[in-house]
This record gives sequence, structure tokens and C-alpha cells, in this order.
Amino acid sequence: MKPFRSIVFDLYGTLYDVHSVAGICDQAFPGKGAAISQLWRQKQLEYTWLRSLMDRYVNFEALTDDALRFTCTALGLTLEEDMARVLGDLYLQLLPHEEMPATLHRLKDAGIPLGIISNGSHKSIAQVVNNSSMGWAFDELISVEDVQVFKPHPKVYELAARRMGHSREHILFVSANGWDASGASLFGYPTCWVNRTLGAFDVLGATPTVVTENLTAMADWVLEDWDGIPEISEGDAAGDAATRPDA
Amino acid sequence: MKPFRSIVFDLYGTLYDVHSVAGICDQAFPGKGAAISQLWRQKQLEYTWLRSLMDRYVNFEALTDDALRFTCTALGLTLEEDMARVLGDLYLQLLPHEEMPATLHRLKDAGIPLGIISNGSHKSIAQVVNNSSMGWAFDELISVEDVQVFKPHPKVYELAARRMGHSREHILFVSANGWDASGASLFGYPTCWVNRTLGAFDVLGATPTVVTENLTAMADWVLEDWDGIPEISEGDAAGDAATRPDA
Repeated sequence: MKPFRSIVFDLYGTLYDVHSVAGICDQAFPGKGAAISQLWRQKQLEYTWLRSLMDRYVNFEALTDDALRFTCTALGLTLEEDMARVLGDLYLQLLPHEEMPATLHRLKDAGIPLGIISNGSHKSIAQVVNNSSMGWAFDELISVEDVQVFKPHPKVYELAARRMGHSREHILFVSANGWDASGASLFGYPTCWVNRTLGAFDVLGATPTVVTENLTAMADWVLEDWDGIPEISEGDAAGDAATRPDA
Repeated sequence: MKPFRSIVFDLYGTLYDVHSVAGICDQAFPGKGAAISQLWRQKQLEYTWLRSLMDRYVNFEALTDDALRFTCTALGLTLEEDMARVLGDLYLQLLPHEEMPATLHRLKDAGIPLGIISNGSHKSIAQVVNNSSMGWAFDELISVEDVQVFKPHPKVYELAARRMGHSREHILFVSANGWDASGASLFGYPTCWVNRTLGAFDVLGATPTVVTENLTAMADWVLEDWDGIPEISEGDAAGDAATRPDA
């Protein structure tokens, strides 16, 4: 019997496929779609880390636009303003990973509250979820915008626990990003690393609770001995924040 | 007449060639040297940012070892412990970029105090400098170890100004890493970005004071109208720290 009272998911790369932008990028710049998508995502992540360290937060749309501009310059491509808007909007229309809708149905049917904690702005998260008609699945949509710093800063993981409404050890944190799973694990969440690419786990001093190759296998693991939300006395009406002086 | 009273250099990638490790990597893993060197450096940087954000500092040697282990796993290579030590030590024996020694001679001949501010530990910096017989060039060897966080955290740039002994606007900061030049520039240093690869500058809201394609051109720019260390009244015996309440 697993002690989870809710599950919180990363959005970009975990529930939604960040490389679903490659097709349109390839139409805009023939033959370059995959290269754009890869470098764009890499720089987007780097800029979240660098801006957080420099205490120079800007929201995810602005930062994604900056990463796209770098990418096009680095690849020797001329990016017109119209095209910058078209491509930037692709991040608001990401496609769910194939197994995502059915998996979330199974977890909802089991009565498990679900949330998203994302680097995206409130607007970005809402649009991605609504554009894919997945609003029914989530009890909480949580944005780093509320703490003005990106993952893996501990403030973000603390915000998620507070919003999910109970203490961190009773929330399963699910991410396909190894560095995010590391940050969540070091913060104190039980963590599932979704390793779709059978890649190496980042060496940051953390170990995920479980590793699965997709969301289906994650749900199989959660539900294999599921018997309803566990009764756990944690006096947690106000969640993690109520029990942590540093919250 | 430029208002610089000293110059502070980044070490890895700016004065010393991080990819000078590729040859030995290629002997250890034939055909894989360049791939190891590239991914190793990328993960090393990522781990400095991620650990800083998570407030999980470890020193640069430990982090470089972690990055090497990730790299070998990701590339499907088996890394024996002996080999891990041999390759890790390569970062203590980096080769200077070709034009570096002559450039530093010119700057020293002009009477300009020179320093290094590096993510490396005290031990790493000292060994790299001594192994290349460049100890004569530097007035200050400054390590992030003293603030237990990596670049581009503002504490690092503040430490450098304090140790160089005058206020930031009178110190030229030289880096080949665009994100480092950005961090230094946003902190308030005049900044030279050494762009050896003719690459794109990171889009982080900063603009370097000057861009040169190597250290030779940097020194040409500094010395073109040099007339000795400028007399600047800044009451700066104690450096930047004396004038900044946040120091």
C-alpha cells in the first residue's frame, strides 16, 4: 500500500511532448526542425537556471522567446518577427505524450487528486492544458510564477506541496526530467522518473523512488496495490506549509 | 583612455582550453574523445547551475567527476575507477589557449594587475596555473569555494571585486562563456566576451562592452590607448565591499 495522497506532475517533457514543435519548425526552416527543437529546449532550460541564479526572473513565454532567438542565430537562421510569434505559440499547443490521457483517466478513476507544477506561467499552463482538452484531469495547476524562480529551486517544490495540501512525503512527484526528479527527491518527495529514452540519470546526489519507461508503467506501479487514499494522520489541512517553519 | 584598474579572467574555456582533454579521452575510449569532452563539459556546467539552485554545493573536482560518470553512462561506456581518476585529473592539467601566455605578458608589462575568478576549487585553480607555469601572471587567484555557490550567482562576482580591491566598474571582466559574461555584465562589470567560435551570445538581457575573437584582440583593445593605471578617486582601499552595503 503506497502512502500517496496525491500526484503532482511536471508538464514540459513529462505530460506534454516538447519536441512536438519540431514539425512546424521544419516547415518554417526546412531540414532544420529537429535541430531547432533540440537546441531551443536546451537553451530554454539553461535560461531558467541562469536567470534563477542571477535573480533575473522573466516569465516562461519571454524566456522561451529568448531561447528561440538564440537558437536561430546559433543555427544561422533569420527569424522574422511574425515567425517568432508563430513558433513561440507552439509551446502553448504542445501535444500530450501518447499514453498521457488514458493514464490520467485511470488515476482519476482511482480517486487520486492530480496536479501540475510547472516552470510555465499561469497562462502557459492553462493554455497547454485547455488546448489539449485535459482540464478535467487536474485539481491544481501550479506555476512557478507565484515564487518568481524556476525549478529546481526548493521554493518551487515547497509551493507544490503547499498547494496540493499535504506534506511532501505523501505526494508522488512525477517528472521525465532527471534534474527535476533530483530536485524533488532532494526536497523530500517520493519521486518517479519517467525515462522514455532509456537515458542516464543525472548525478546530483539523488535517487528516484522508482523509474518507469512511460506514464502507463508509472500508473501500473501506483495502482498495483491501490486501496483508496490512505488514512494518514498528519494534521495537514493546510498542507506542508503548516508543518514546516521554513515554508 | 579606459578606466580599468585591473582585469579578472574566467579560467575554464577563457584562459585554458577545456577541450584539451579530448585527446586523452580518445586514447581511453577510441573514437569517443570529442563526444566525451563535449558532453562532459555541458553536464559539468549544468551541474554547477543545478547544485547552486538547490543549495547543494560540492567542489568542482567532485562535480566534474559526477559529470564524467553521467557522460560515460549516457554514451554507453564502462568507466573503471582507475580511469575515472586519470580522466578527472585532466581538468588539473588543462592547456592554456594558444595566445594566452603572450597576451598576459603584454598586460603585465603594461602594469595591469590580473586575476582569475573561477568555479574551480582553490586546489584546482592552483594546479592548473602551476602545471602550465603561469603563476607569474596573476595577482589574485579567486575561487567560488569562498562563497560555496557557482557562477553566475552575484555572490561570485562580488567576491571577485572585493578581492581585486576596487569597485566593479573599474575591473574588466573577461570570459569566453556567454552566460558568464552576461552574469558579470548584469552585476556591473565592463565585460569582454571572447568569442573564439564566432558563436551567438546568450539572450539573457545583457550586452558585453566589447566582443573579441581571442585574447590577443582583447589585449589590443585594452592597450590601444593605454597610459598607465588611471587615477580614479574611489576611496577604494577595501574595494567594492567598502562601498556596497550588500557586500
